[in-house]
Amino acid sequence: MTDDQLSLTFAALADPTRRAILARLSTGEATVNELAEPFSISIQAVSKHLKLLERAGLISRGRDAQWRPCRLETAPLETASDWIQRYREDWRDRFDRLDQEIQTIQRREKGEDHE
Amino acid sequence: MTDDQLSLTFAALADPTRRAILARLSTGEATVNELAEPFSISIQAVSKHLKLLERAGLISRGRDAQWRPCRLETAPLETASDWIQRYREDWRDRFDRLDQEIQTIQRREKGEDHE
Repeated sequence: MTDDQLSLTFAALADPTRRAILARLSTGEATVNELAEPFSISIQAVSKHLKLLERAGLISRGRDAQWRPCRLETAPLETASDWIQRYREDWRDRFDRLDQEIQTIQRREKGEDHE
Repeated sequence: MTDDQLSLTFAALADPTRRAILARLSTGEATVNELAEPFSISIQAVSKHLKLLERAGLISRGRDAQWRPCRLETAPLETASDWIQRYREDWRDRFDRLDQEIQTIQRREKGEDHE
């Protein structure tokens, strides 16, 4: 299930309009109309993106039937970010170790040169 | 174009098998056969995932026609991670500010209680 949640999160982030919506919401709550304003797409299209973001847990919506303000939910973003960081770090650690080994070999070779 | 690259990265990450492949590659290079081993899917299916990961720039492949070892490329992961972190932080900062305001109000009210 965690894998599925993570897939939903990444799929939701794989669209420039949805990322722009999340970027806007990171500055505060907004209604569908406010979110649609900066985009050259219809309110219907924005609503579709919002439904997908809501299903992925990246936004929640207020109960007021008329306005239903959208707000960012950061928990899935944290999980997604943690996933990326972990493997980036494994890879970097591996390179750091290789780098150290190369330096050790180079120092040894230099030492031999002086003999 | 940056947006497109970011969409490609997130779309590539939106699949548990592809994430497992990247996780495996974070420990070192591997051939298609080595990558297919832990999964109950065909080498053809793994190859398809690898093509998508390569197109997204998340892996590169060696030139040796027979083995073509795969290796992780972390640059797109860093861009993706930076994107997430940025908006998480904006949102957190916003909450921190709200929290400070609430504390200021509470302190003021407490002060008034003592009067």
